Amino acid sequence: MTVMNSKSFDESLTAYADLLVHVGLNVQPGQKTVVRAAVDTAPLVRKVVEAAYRAGSPYVEVMWSDGQVTRSRFLHGPEGSFEILPEWRAEGMIRLGQEGAATLSIVSDDPDLLAGVNPDNFATFSRRWSAAMRPFSDLAMRDAIPWCVAAGAAPAWASRVFPQLREDEAVSRLWSAIFTATRVTEPDPVAAWQAHNESLRTMRERLNARRYVAVRFTGPGTDLRVGLADGHIWEGGASRTPAGVPFVANMPTEEVFTAPHREHVSGVVRATLPFSHNGALIDDLSLTFEGGKVLKAVAGTGQEALDHILATDEGARRLGEVALVPASSPIAKADILFLNTLFDENAASHIALGRGYDLTIEGGREQGEEEALAAGLNDSLVHVDFMIGSATVDVDGELPDGSSEPLMRSGEWVD
Amino acid sequence: MTVMNSKSFDESLTAYADLLVHVGLNVQPGQKTVVRAAVDTAPLVRKVVEAAYRAGSPYVEVMWSDGQVTRSRFLHGPEGSFEILPEWRAEGMIRLGQEGAATLSIVSDDPDLLAGVNPDNFATFSRRWSAAMRPFSDLAMRDAIPWCVAAGAAPAWASRVFPQLREDEAVSRLWSAIFTATRVTEPDPVAAWQAHNESLRTMRERLNARRYVAVRFTGPGTDLRVGLADGHIWEGGASRTPAGVPFVANMPTEEVFTAPHREHVSGVVRATLPFSHNGALIDDLSLTFEGGKVLKAVAGTGQEALDHILATDEGARRLGEVALVPASSPIAKADILFLNTLFDENAASHIALGRGYDLTIEGGREQGEEEALAAGLNDSLVHVDFMIGSATVDVDGELPDGSSEPLMRSGEWVD
Repeated sequence: MTVMNSKSFDESLTAYADLLVHVGLNVQPGQKTVVRAAVDTAPLVRKVVEAAYRAGSPYVEVMWSDGQVTRSRFLHGPEGSFEILPEWRAEGMIRLGQEGAATLSIVSDDPDLLAGVNPDNFATFSRRWSAAMRPFSDLAMRDAIPWCVAAGAAPAWASRVFPQLREDEAVSRLWSAIFTATRVTEPDPVAAWQAHNESLRTMRERLNARRYVAVRFTGPGTDLRVGLADGHIWEGGASRTPAGVPFVANMPTEEVFTAPHREHVSGVVRATLPFSHNGALIDDLSLTFEGGKVLKAVAGTGQEALDHILATDEGARRLGEVALVPASSPIAKADILFLNTLFDENAASHIALGRGYDLTIEGGREQGEEEALAAGLNDSLVHVDFMIGSATVDVDGELPDGSSEPLMRSGEWVD
Repeated sequence: MTVMNSKSFDESLTAYADLLVHVGLNVQPGQKTVVRAAVDTAPLVRKVVEAAYRAGSPYVEVMWSDGQVTRSRFLHGPEGSFEILPEWRAEGMIRLGQEGAATLSIVSDDPDLLAGVNPDNFATFSRRWSAAMRPFSDLAMRDAIPWCVAAGAAPAWASRVFPQLREDEAVSRLWSAIFTATRVTEPDPVAAWQAHNESLRTMRERLNARRYVAVRFTGPGTDLRVGLADGHIWEGGASRTPAGVPFVANMPTEEVFTAPHREHVSGVVRATLPFSHNGALIDDLSLTFEGGKVLKAVAGTGQEALDHILATDEGARRLGEVALVPASSPIAKADILFLNTLFDENAASHIALGRGYDLTIEGGREQGEEEALAAGLNDSLVHVDFMIGSATVDVDGELPDGSSEPLMRSGEWVD
């Protein structure tokens, strides 16, 4: 295997597993751990499991999956059978979540996973599965349990990112890109993450102090005003459990983000990068908003998948997140289109259709579902990010008195 | 990958998957399917899943596992945590079983999986897991649902069987041995299995017609009288579900087998092959029985693992199965020690400590647990096979009038 840094591949994989367990999840002695991963990522999973036990976890549950098994169902399964769910997996996740388990999701999806699949069938399954998993998602969304989403390189994904390379070389290149993006290549990855979390904290505190009522994006094909939820909170970097234990919910993460007001978004926005949702690629996306709601949605590629997202429920046509990322982020500079939101969203400012995060408004949903909705926090079964920032996009903050000040120029923070 | 027969590896793997789905499980349209497999066997699992959907299964559940993840728990998990179970997996299996799902178990265990593991910890987990799975095992044991145990080649197992080969060559050799043992190398594997099942049926009908009260094994270190349960039934080859659908519970299978009487076993027996149980190797085994019960148990290797089996419960010290296999079986002729019971038990006559099969006595356990026990059918949480036949072992059948007749001489059937 080709290695692009001074650590051997095995050393890097071990350092990555340790980083995910100690910084991503920050597993505490006595705390159960869940790892959700595809069978293709077994070498990483095995190291994560060992690190979690060594951290004092009394039980590590691996919820394995396989993209080709999933695809086979939707290609060859009989019509009318797609409402069948593995409920016991949802029940297991919910039970572990209620016990306070730390949950790592290792994503490695083939962006073309669902190519040729009838999107109605996948949507049927997906809607029911999201509903079954809702008690677990609720725990994670309000940071009641530590959780982390990170990536593992798998053959199909790697070959889509590096189509010119042989499969094993593509996998090796993708691992290198993951190690670089997650600071595993730094001499002391844990210390590097502490410094990075600190700089995201500084930025988020600055934004919170200003109490903006809206942020405005302007650039080619984009003139969008995103009103912010009442009592919105800018978040970024490390999160904390109710017991005060820090964890990092996304690795990598380069963003500061908050809750848009679900009824106060207007204008037009053009996505600056393609993105992959449930295995379908959506490109050349343009959305028109009025009163917070998508009025018009056009995609050059993936119109059907886009229409399915929007048809999920009422909240799928409204925004649940707005996030600012400088165009000079390490991931943007790597100049690789990862075809995976975890990376690509950290290459550019972005917004998300669907459910908003509890932690991005004061009182979250614990103040009551209706109160949170009235404050502007959106609700939906889905949460779909897409990138709208670039070196040609400006961002301004609108103050309560109606005046504006520049936040980003040509994609970079204004000091 | 080296291929030892005229089909390409991929063609053989496809033919094997089809054989498991259509002959092993005999999946019917509308019937759910469960596949239990290690992540290392993903290429076979994917083909099985596709074949099951093509056979009309509305849902295929893959319950993945990984030997190294299991091992990591027992090596690095904290003391006192081994009673924690993934109950939801047992619940999922039981629910699917109650719905009549066909269940394929693909075994590929490293025989050294639990080397260096504290056997108490594994025994604690194993006892609780068997108890949690009991409602499912009951369905399979009485053939209420179609089930099949078959093998897949995985690196650690292959390297133990062929220690002189490079890992990828060992895996390739083991696949070839599996394909040969399961008749996948035949021009028409499905037809070959029909003929084979027919010959096992003929043998079992001959034994059933004789109404033996006991079988006696004599050979080096062995003089064992195995009394048979009242109303015992010799089984072998294809089984049938209550609806009359044939399936093959073990692939390969070369045995005819029945229920010993749990109280009428006496004498001494020496195992003719080492065997692997829950990852521990047991070799040079000698057992002394009186009144059906093991009085003395000595193993040259694996004494601790043996003691743990025997300590499971009262029934673990008594026999649940006696099986006759000619020394000339294709698996014996291959002259490979597979270190896996599925194969090695089909190389030689064998007996099993622990639970007996419902289908090997008239009325099974449906006549009542106590009635079955009184008829001699043994009960336990475990079922552990080991080989006692060879070309130097004779077998005689004892008739109700006290006379005997030869069944096998020098390991071969007497016509």
